[in-house]
Amino acid sequence: MKMEKAVVVFSGGQDSTTCLFWALKQFAEVEAVTFDYGQRHRLEIEVASAIAKELHVPHTVLDMSLLNQLAPNALTRSEIAIEQKEGQLPSTFVDGRNLLFLSFAAVLAKQKGARHLVTGVCETDFSGYPDCRDIFIKSLNVTLNLAMDYQFVIHTPLMWLTKAQTWKLADELGAFEFVRTKTLTCYNGIIADGCGECPACVLRRRGLEEYMKEKEGITQL
Amino acid sequence: MKMEKAVVVFSGGQDSTTCLFWALKQFAEVEAVTFDYGQRHRLEIEVASAIAKELHVPHTVLDMSLLNQLAPNALTRSEIAIEQKEGQLPSTFVDGRNLLFLSFAAVLAKQKGARHLVTGVCETDFSGYPDCRDIFIKSLNVTLNLAMDYQFVIHTPLMWLTKAQTWKLADELGAFEFVRTKTLTCYNGIIADGCGECPACVLRRRGLEEYMKEKEGITQL
Repeated sequence: MKMEKAVVVFSGGQDSTTCLFWALKQFAEVEAVTFDYGQRHRLEIEVASAIAKELHVPHTVLDMSLLNQLAPNALTRSEIAIEQKEGQLPSTFVDGRNLLFLSFAAVLAKQKGARHLVTGVCETDFSGYPDCRDIFIKSLNVTLNLAMDYQFVIHTPLMWLTKAQTWKLADELGAFEFVRTKTLTCYNGIIADGCGECPACVLRRRGLEEYMKEKEGITQL
Repeated sequence: MKMEKAVVVFSGGQDSTTCLFWALKQFAEVEAVTFDYGQRHRLEIEVASAIAKELHVPHTVLDMSLLNQLAPNALTRSEIAIEQKEGQLPSTFVDGRNLLFLSFAAVLAKQKGARHLVTGVCETDFSGYPDCRDIFIKSLNVTLNLAMDYQFVIHTPLMWLTKAQTWKLADELGAFEFVRTKTLTCYNGIIADGCGECPACVLRRRGLEEYMKEKEGITQL
């Protein structure tokens, strides 16, 4: 794949930044695309742009404000509290969001002469989002190829990784410190280790601690 | 299907208006969705709204101006002439347009409690658009169901019809005069029979003449 070009779906968070490093190792040319759908924190777009700039990756920000017409929810309307009840989809859910993002990314990729698409979706910490499942991604890959008569290949390097394994992958890619200090995962818009309280921070920290322990050869009793 | 609800992808043209009449016969409840992507003629949206109103069909217009970020072309930028060279895609082509429209329509439909989607795509006068093919629609149907964990059914009543047969269908639905006099197909924004010169008008008229001859039992020598 070294000779070819890829487009990475990129939010500036831990997962997609790790994917960006992964793509930079795999492909001759890499571009990033970020979707602006009125994120709770405009900072998310700024963080993504800063990372892309630092890594010399051409970066396209696409206006997806249309999403707000369809699914007002906690990610885009700050008056709604972010909460998750046991066994339910988190209130940040936008139906079919990955379907829409990946479809737009594919249209963009074809125009840029890239047939490889990279996304950080992950079935491991599957929290009920049907469009994060591997079977969805494979079906979408066929649909995209038929839609545009083009041989897209969707890559999902994190699909079967735990959060700890994602940290390990970043480390193997020489990006551990970069990902730890420069990405934004926190729902409260705090970079790096974040607020430490929101569900995204808790998930991120647990994975990090698990990986650090493994790395140091310490087993938890 | 009489008890269920359907969403019709609706442009106010001959094909989708015929589909709307078809859906009104098949389903207990029908809504229409129109995509506003900076059409050459704003009239297209107005015509669609007027038809929906006359038929008492709830109508949603979704802003798809994002498409212009991706694929500036003759349908959306009036300075580009509409032309079609033998064996090439017409210059009105937007890569993956049906993919995007149908995906948004599906998100909207699920929110409105409708699992049936109706679209006027047609493989018969297939002019090189890969996302008008039956195989694409079937693949997309599976992808949508996986994306949203919902049992969508995409209906394509015109898929295998010629333009003449589409006129016949409108006639059988009691909508012949309505479709003939109130829909907008013409690239130059002239309602009903149109300018008579653009490719869309030529196609529409040929189909109409063919059906009228068949109806009158006259065979062309």
